[in-house]
Amino acid sequence: MRTLNVAMIGTGFMGKAHALAYAGLPAFYWPPPAMPVRKIVVDRTEALAATGRDRFGFEQFSTDWAAVVQDPQIDIVDICTPNDSHAEIAIAAAAAGKHIMCEKPLARSAPEAKRMLDAVAGKNLTHMVAFNYRHTPAVVFARKLIEEGRIGTLLNFHGHYLSDWPADPATPLSWRFQKSVAGSGTIGDIGSHVLDMARYLVGEIEAVNAIVQTYIAERPEQTGEFDKLGSAERRPEGPRRPVDVDDEATFLLRFAGGAVGSIDASRNAYGRGNYLGFELHGTTGSIIFNFERMNELKVFFADDPPELRGFRTIMTGPPHPHGEALWPVAGLGVGYLDVKIVECHGLISAIAEGRQASPNFADGYRIALICDAILASGQRRGWVEVGA
Amino acid sequence: MRTLNVAMIGTGFMGKAHALAYAGLPAFYWPPPAMPVRKIVVDRTEALAATGRDRFGFEQFSTDWAAVVQDPQIDIVDICTPNDSHAEIAIAAAAAGKHIMCEKPLARSAPEAKRMLDAVAGKNLTHMVAFNYRHTPAVVFARKLIEEGRIGTLLNFHGHYLSDWPADPATPLSWRFQKSVAGSGTIGDIGSHVLDMARYLVGEIEAVNAIVQTYIAERPEQTGEFDKLGSAERRPEGPRRPVDVDDEATFLLRFAGGAVGSIDASRNAYGRGNYLGFELHGTTGSIIFNFERMNELKVFFADDPPELRGFRTIMTGPPHPHGEALWPVAGLGVGYLDVKIVECHGLISAIAEGRQASPNFADGYRIALICDAILASGQRRGWVEVGA
Amino acid sequence: MRTLNVAMIGTGFMGKAHALAYAGLPAFYWPPPAMPVRKIVVDRTEALAATGRDRFGFEQFSTDWAAVVQDPQIDIVDICTPNDSHAEIAIAAAAAGKHIMCEKPLARSAPEAKRMLDAVAGKNLTHMVAFNYRHTPAVVFARKLIEEGRIGTLLNFHGHYLSDWPADPATPLSWRFQKSVAGSGTIGDIGSHVLDMARYLVGEIEAVNAIVQTYIAERPEQTGEFDKLGSAERRPEGPRRPVDVDDEATFLLRFAGGAVGSIDASRNAYGRGNYLGFELHGTTGSIIFNFERMNELKVFFADDPPELRGFRTIMTGPPHPHGEALWPVAGLGVGYLDVKIVECHGLISAIAEGRQASPNFADGYRIALICDAILASGQRRGWVEVGA
Amino acid sequence: MRTLNVAMIGTGFMGKAHALAYAGLPAFYWPPPAMPVRKIVVDRTEALAATGRDRFGFEQFSTDWAAVVQDPQIDIVDICTPNDSHAEIAIAAAAAGKHIMCEKPLARSAPEAKRMLDAVAGKNLTHMVAFNYRHTPAVVFARKLIEEGRIGTLLNFHGHYLSDWPADPATPLSWRFQKSVAGSGTIGDIGSHVLDMARYLVGEIEAVNAIVQTYIAERPEQTGEFDKLGSAERRPEGPRRPVDVDDEATFLLRFAGGAVGSIDASRNAYGRGNYLGFELHGTTGSIIFNFERMNELKVFFADDPPELRGFRTIMTGPPHPHGEALWPVAGLGVGYLDVKIVECHGLISAIAEGRQASPNFADGYRIALICDAILASGQRRGWVEVGA
Repeated sequence: MRTLNVAMIGTGFMGKAHALAYAGLPAFYWPPPAMPVRKIVVDRTEALAATGRDRFGFEQFSTDWAAVVQDPQIDIVDICTPNDSHAEIAIAAAAAGKHIMCEKPLARSAPEAKRMLDAVAGKNLTHMVAFNYRHTPAVVFARKLIEEGRIGTLLNFHGHYLSDWPADPATPLSWRFQKSVAGSGTIGDIGSHVLDMARYLVGEIEAVNAIVQTYIAERPEQTGEFDKLGSAERRPEGPRRPVDVDDEATFLLRFAGGAVGSIDASRNAYGRGNYLGFELHGTTGSIIFNFERMNELKVFFADDPPELRGFRTIMTGPPHPHGEALWPVAGLGVGYLDVKIVECHGLISAIAEGRQASPNFADGYRIALICDAILASGQRRGWVEVGA
Repeated sequence: MRTLNVAMIGTGFMGKAHALAYAGLPAFYWPPPAMPVRKIVVDRTEALAATGRDRFGFEQFSTDWAAVVQDPQIDIVDICTPNDSHAEIAIAAAAAGKHIMCEKPLARSAPEAKRMLDAVAGKNLTHMVAFNYRHTPAVVFARKLIEEGRIGTLLNFHGHYLSDWPADPATPLSWRFQKSVAGSGTIGDIGSHVLDMARYLVGEIEAVNAIVQTYIAERPEQTGEFDKLGSAERRPEGPRRPVDVDDEATFLLRFAGGAVGSIDASRNAYGRGNYLGFELHGTTGSIIFNFERMNELKVFFADDPPELRGFRTIMTGPPHPHGEALWPVAGLGVGYLDVKIVECHGLISAIAEGRQASPNFADGYRIALICDAILASGQRRGWVEVGA
Repeated sequence: MRTLNVAMIGTGFMGKAHALAYAGLPAFYWPPPAMPVRKIVVDRTEALAATGRDRFGFEQFSTDWAAVVQDPQIDIVDICTPNDSHAEIAIAAAAAGKHIMCEKPLARSAPEAKRMLDAVAGKNLTHMVAFNYRHTPAVVFARKLIEEGRIGTLLNFHGHYLSDWPADPATPLSWRFQKSVAGSGTIGDIGSHVLDMARYLVGEIEAVNAIVQTYIAERPEQTGEFDKLGSAERRPEGPRRPVDVDDEATFLLRFAGGAVGSIDASRNAYGRGNYLGFELHGTTGSIIFNFERMNELKVFFADDPPELRGFRTIMTGPPHPHGEALWPVAGLGVGYLDVKIVECHGLISAIAEGRQASPNFADGYRIALICDAILASGQRRGWVEVGA
Repeated sequence: MRTLNVAMIGTGFMGKAHALAYAGLPAFYWPPPAMPVRKIVVDRTEALAATGRDRFGFEQFSTDWAAVVQDPQIDIVDICTPNDSHAEIAIAAAAAGKHIMCEKPLARSAPEAKRMLDAVAGKNLTHMVAFNYRHTPAVVFARKLIEEGRIGTLLNFHGHYLSDWPADPATPLSWRFQKSVAGSGTIGDIGSHVLDMARYLVGEIEAVNAIVQTYIAERPEQTGEFDKLGSAERRPEGPRRPVDVDDEATFLLRFAGGAVGSIDASRNAYGRGNYLGFELHGTTGSIIFNFERMNELKVFFADDPPELRGFRTIMTGPPHPHGEALWPVAGLGVGYLDVKIVECHGLISAIAEGRQASPNFADGYRIALICDAILASGQRRGWVEVGA
């Protein structure tokens, strides 16, 4: 069996998720398309990197990502760092001919993403951007229903990604609240996920029209090495520094195919932990999804007899996409980690088959263009064509 | 006990609801603020009017609304007709010094609504517009929580009113699909309800930014006297005529108080029968409501201890607004009719106390201004200040 | 149009509901099978009876039920009193040849119910017992699906009726907690409703096996004329008297058709206001219902394609039983009152058509037998055949 | 860091879950209490065992479990085989002084479980039985609330474990439908899980009273090596053999602490994939849980102000048990695998700390006694004291 040696850069929340996905891949998909080997892990300090090796089951560790991406034994460079280093690492990895997995958003801005896309263009390598939520079995199944025409012509899409771990002004100022590192706030961090889902399900987005706000203008400094998101200790008395990214974005969408839509993305939505989802309607049916209940897809078929029409709550399981690989009973419970394993399968199978992954850097760039358009629309207060 | 003689104009869906509300008022609120008497009912033909009398428990009937509104024995004129006759009847009733209940939207356009508001201005009469959904006990309770400061400063409001009885292109062309009668489509018919709720809970709306569409451009002619809404027979083979109003509207909102928002209103949302509701977030809490589960209000308090935080599904009952008047156990089930009775109580108690009702023609006019701004925004493709 | 003169005995919670049902009948069902006339209302004192007349729209009032049931102008005697007077009034009404509507449970015990059944036997009169919840459109539709064979052979039924207004030991000792008036506690008051639903949907119950408890052994005395249920003022400091009925009953069921089941009935279920419902499974499908969301029926069809199987949440509306009579859009919201109107239609149409109503005294007697068997099973600790 | 060498017997569904749990442990809990090493995996054939090694990340493989449990390098014997080999392997492992993880139910009968418990008694070894669902963070949190007294004195517990992958009579006859291998059907396979949860939350169960049925009396033979549960190909035309275990069990419970309860366990519940859960009520609150929405716990506190009372849907996350170890945002989604990792942590930390695990063989034996009592009650038709 072909093996693929992975170098993973970054050992925070995403490093944990990616490492476990490589570990879980063969258990779920057997035989696997290729066998990923957790070869080397990289972080900024020896202590962090050595811990990463032991904790996440890698063979080696390093503090020198630049050397690692040149290492001939490495097949895949997996970028789990904050946004401001994505481009540099990815471009170096591309130059070294490595396959690349990059966390989302691809970059801090569309021009930066474009440089990354240019770096991989024409190279014989597979690249992927980690918009993981589209790999949820229920979402893959939603796309299948749409492709089969069961929903008809799509008319509208209403998406949301609401969260509340940052809603407390005492949540510390991690890199996610700093424009120089993150590029944007709500828009790139969570809005990008629901935009990816919108494109995946409905098609290309042509124009946006946005309200963009920053309600919480300063936060206490972060302590410790890692962004701990909702696990971070709230520090109401800590010294504060300014937030220079958005925390609230609501926008209208026009899709190339004629559908219209809206998306609400917020870091100020108390009670919504990770409320990513959508409701979409077509001429013959409707679909509703919410990642907080990721094992369920609600589907309505207009051609059911009138008295029997109702949203079906379909619990994904063996009959659904990736169902054979996951668990043998619907309702056993796919979680976040399972979705990362499905995503990992997408990467590894693309490499094994010598083809491009999905979503890849072209998708990541397109999302970056949309995010930039949203920011511009918020400033200009009006419709902005994407990429214009 | 003071009695108030009602003349009701129109015996369709709304006539049924209003007549039952008058009948139910004293059973729910005892003693009632005043006793409404179903004195005379009006419709276009003798047959319709006579049936209205017998069916809805009125003492008399008439086909001459103009005479009826002059009748000295009448205290209240209740307008349950399609939108194009609201202004004429209301202005005549105001001239005759009658209290007025008018179905929503108040008029087909803001200028028309303004004429109605002018007609009642300075007169010693109570007027009300039937944005009934705000009278749902759960919604009144939501407002109470907001007024008490439990939700903090409001940051965002996301509303929806999705319906599907018109989603089938074979649903006949009732007056609701004709601009000359209805004024607008989705916007005035259902969007106005959620706009009323937004104003009621969050405050004044300053500017809107909309997508407005008409997906279903023609429909079969209606047969029969009445608009039967979702009960109408679908006539896929019937002769078709053009629809000249919108059926899909999605829009951004800016509130005077600083909050932002979005509303999705659609007649193309298969699976959503009467899906009116909202989710709103403030600095210390959140509220979610959906009229299809009108007995429930979901409330989140950020000041609950972290491990005990969660949306509370509060089932309205005796401890909540109007709870003593309705049913003695939460979960017994308030329905559409109960909400109309609460609304009726709002009208009758305002008259009995010699004060203005809420919402009244001033609210109806303001909603008409917002609806006109949404239509204008859809055409101009950009932000429109309300009333500008 | 034929009219039917109603004499209603009792002006509490049930009097309110019944009076409004008569008032609403023609508005919902037009033309009505016959026109009920609220002729005379009876209560214990002049003040109560006179208030009943004015509040509930009757023509006359009386304090002498015995005289009223003899009154030749009366067609229907409607018994809305506590359980201990059902038999006496009903037997007198039957002797006078009146049609009878009787609140549930029919009597305090099976022998008492048997006397009532004997009294109406062979008389040319229509009788009904007010197990109103089976008239919920969603429940009627559930029965239709079962009758059409869509669920296959029924295998199991799990019912519940959980409530919490009595869960506070400070809830006053109304007649519902006194054996001499009520007969039993949870079993007859709420258990009987879910037993009626079980019989309606699954068929006859042959044997029961129960746990019966009384957790709250004393309560403060009630003040005021009426049992106010969940609206009653809690009186933690009030003088207490013993409760001599059950407040918790859990039991197994064997149905004549071979299905098995269980029912949980409790007055100690904090958070459950009026949580009456069931889940049933057959060889080709399943149904779930909960009255707190009475507009929804969840149905699963095993013959749907595997990937499209899921519980459909069907929102009842125009296509469903009584849908044409109720409201013209699904989701507008049927409430408790609407269900009482449907029930009233069942009574009036049975009388108009000269046939027996459903459920009638024979059903009420059978339920009484089951309730007595449950009580006996709780004492004997084992299976008890119903009626043995 | 101390390492613990694991020998895992069995490479089916449970082998996959256990192997991934060992792999994931250090990523979630860092530093781990000890580092489990996937040393050797055993299955019946070389091919199966070798595949197990590669697929699940073990160092070695074997087909001789008896030799492996004697292997001095092994610290933990993990039994993932069907029920009929649990006792033999566990007793041998105990004799060899190994720590033991055993899948549930512990044995096919109480006497068999007793032999296993006797084998570990007095030995200095940690043993655990894999009633994994109690390790769901929401369930651990439920127990914490109960222990803190937030729910008061517990009054009733209503549990359920409904499933539908066996509801189709064409689902093949795996070992789960054979008494000689499984011991019982629904009762031991799924009923045992909800009984474990009942004991965990409410306390010891003293007596049971059951209906036990077998609706599907024969099934087509299984093809292939493994029981594939819901993934198994349905074989409506396959040759059939008799089922000699139950598929439907409904029973009443009496708890030692005075609470009462009922449990519905069924393999005939179309639409319920893995519907394990409960509703429990106490004198000051209530809790509802359903594993199909395992990230949510519904909690009601009677001491909330009346107008603010409602079930809180608490989404488990960082503030809850194991929250720091799992994912940094509530709603990211704990799945089945995460629960197995928490369970694994329970085992490894008990061994590391030289103490007994929970639940252990004593719990497994007690559950076996209850299961035997349920079977006996179903036959005798009446109450059976547990262990009598």
